[in-house]
Amino acid sequence: MAPPSPSHVAPLLKDELDIVIPTIRNLDFLEMWRPFLQPYHLIIVQDGDPSKTIRVPEGFDYELYNRNDINKILGPKASCISFKDSACRCFGFLVSKKKYIFTIDDDCFVAKDPSGEEINALAQHIKNLLTPSTPHFFNTLYDPYREGADFVRGYPFSLREGVPTAISHGLWLNIPDYDAPTQLVKPLERNSRYVDAVMTIPKGTLFPMCGMNLAFDRELIGPALYFGLMGDGQPIGRYDDMWAGWCAKVIADHLGLGVKTGLPYIWHSKASNPFVNLKKEYKGIYWQEEIIPFFQSAALPKESKTVQQCYRDLSLLVKEKLGPIDPYFQKLSDEMVTWIEAWEELNPAAK
Amino acid sequence: MAPPSPSHVAPLLKDELDIVIPTIRNLDFLEMWRPFLQPYHLIIVQDGDPSKTIRVPEGFDYELYNRNDINKILGPKASCISFKDSACRCFGFLVSKKKYIFTIDDDCFVAKDPSGEEINALAQHIKNLLTPSTPHFFNTLYDPYREGADFVRGYPFSLREGVPTAISHGLWLNIPDYDAPTQLVKPLERNSRYVDAVMTIPKGTLFPMCGMNLAFDRELIGPALYFGLMGDGQPIGRYDDMWAGWCAKVIADHLGLGVKTGLPYIWHSKASNPFVNLKKEYKGIYWQEEIIPFFQSAALPKESKTVQQCYRDLSLLVKEKLGPIDPYFQKLSDEMVTWIEAWEELNPAAK
Repeated sequence: MAPPSPSHVAPLLKDELDIVIPTIRNLDFLEMWRPFLQPYHLIIVQDGDPSKTIRVPEGFDYELYNRNDINKILGPKASCISFKDSACRCFGFLVSKKKYIFTIDDDCFVAKDPSGEEINALAQHIKNLLTPSTPHFFNTLYDPYREGADFVRGYPFSLREGVPTAISHGLWLNIPDYDAPTQLVKPLERNSRYVDAVMTIPKGTLFPMCGMNLAFDRELIGPALYFGLMGDGQPIGRYDDMWAGWCAKVIADHLGLGVKTGLPYIWHSKASNPFVNLKKEYKGIYWQEEIIPFFQSAALPKESKTVQQCYRDLSLLVKEKLGPIDPYFQKLSDEMVTWIEAWEELNPAAK
Repeated sequence: MAPPSPSHVAPLLKDELDIVIPTIRNLDFLEMWRPFLQPYHLIIVQDGDPSKTIRVPEGFDYELYNRNDINKILGPKASCISFKDSACRCFGFLVSKKKYIFTIDDDCFVAKDPSGEEINALAQHIKNLLTPSTPHFFNTLYDPYREGADFVRGYPFSLREGVPTAISHGLWLNIPDYDAPTQLVKPLERNSRYVDAVMTIPKGTLFPMCGMNLAFDRELIGPALYFGLMGDGQPIGRYDDMWAGWCAKVIADHLGLGVKTGLPYIWHSKASNPFVNLKKEYKGIYWQEEIIPFFQSAALPKESKTVQQCYRDLSLLVKEKLGPIDPYFQKLSDEMVTWIEAWEELNPAAK
């Protein structure tokens, strides 16, 4: 099954995809993306001071929400949306009415492939989402649906239809997505290796999902893409996308959905301050040693067939198993429920 | 941890590595490999007519075994070594006394990387084997031990030491390793995509292991690399490497060892005849639909701490669970035990 070509796909999903951008500054970075992203609708989630004006380059179609808007729309349920952390991006997922989401950070620029051509990241994400995933068996030539590739000898024929793809996780050239300790140890390391592959992350395997360059099928997995409680007033930051990735992978595995990683690359321009990051991350760095075994062994009830139900199940497990680590996880568990309530309120058909 | 450079590594393992080549013809293909392989010792397993003379290019240090030699050395246990199938290669693993094995098919030539440089496949395999694997969590920048890469944000620190690497599975440019039906449907497909990555196949995930370009740590996993009963007198062929891969992966997972796939590439020159292949494969194609779920759920006893013990456990499971499919699996189970007995006889220290 050959994936549709980008030029064919882009108009196809134009009315079915929103681009979500969390930001605290003017969106000049969009100038570079204009050829690829201008046809699409943007949902801008303004973090920090709501009185500040965010400039959006002319010609882009967008809606913008600041903290006042979030509070107004969600009322008391606004407590589940983080403040002063890119975790606030998930508010955009909540208010979108589209089937697909592409979310990108405002320090990500258009990368070039080894032939020097500018990479249309969104077109690649769409390819990834519109072709199946293969989580039940590893294909050594990577994505079997890609042109010039297929399933290799020994790949069971009954598994070759694959499963629907829920998430497409893209990568980054230039500044790699390292934690603060690694940033401190390797301040000059840059990612210059273009790995020309897309692959499915096997069922039962967790991965560190980065929110910088990410697309997903909102109808299939949207309610699992909650970015947690981070930033202002919370004991932790920079684990928002990790949290969403762990939850979403466990739920995707349970529901028989696929998660891909690899292409497309973006150009990540700016390393964040490792000293500030260390302060945000340090609790996460030791908590994750318990959180990951928790997610690796989290078993959801067979009867749970919707993302919302799975997410509620997971919130109970979080309270029971992670609650004893720190009261933070009890609060997080409560806000996971608030998030699902907000999702169902704003997306009544999803209930 | 930066891997040692090839020039440093190659002499290091010169006396610790054997190259195993199964063949029925003159080994002219070695001429092209001379710069990379001549320093190493070859074990040639001559398949088919033992009266035929196999020419080996001058200057290579080798020992050669034909069917008469195999019968003489193993006596009645020779029944476990296949005839008229590349499965016979595992005899070479049995008689080697070295820590590492690199096995390669005689229709595999030196490939070039995208810069046009000839790829020293063995040097890359050695890098893969000498650096750890990471089967417990997926690293989105692939091999974290490679120069210019590391573990990304969110990768648990307790897992960053990795586990010892048992197997390095290399890939193929030009003729891809397809089954007969795919060969028939896509006779002209060639693999021209050079994916610049090495990755660990996660714990719990099976893969189709191809024996064309494969290296392993014989001390860590050798007894699991039995290539089964194939070819002459058997109802199946071309599943030798698959069988070894399924068994070895289950045992590697059980023992906490790693399996890598990706680089290095070789240039696979010759597509085998798809009509002949179809005849060899057709039972495997439907049997694998039951074999793979069997291996996916095969649980080895906690007390089994050696490869040999695990392999004996697996032989019992094969008899019990696959035996009902076809009497072939009962015979295969028996020969799995014969293989281990032969291994222990020829490798007394391993007992």
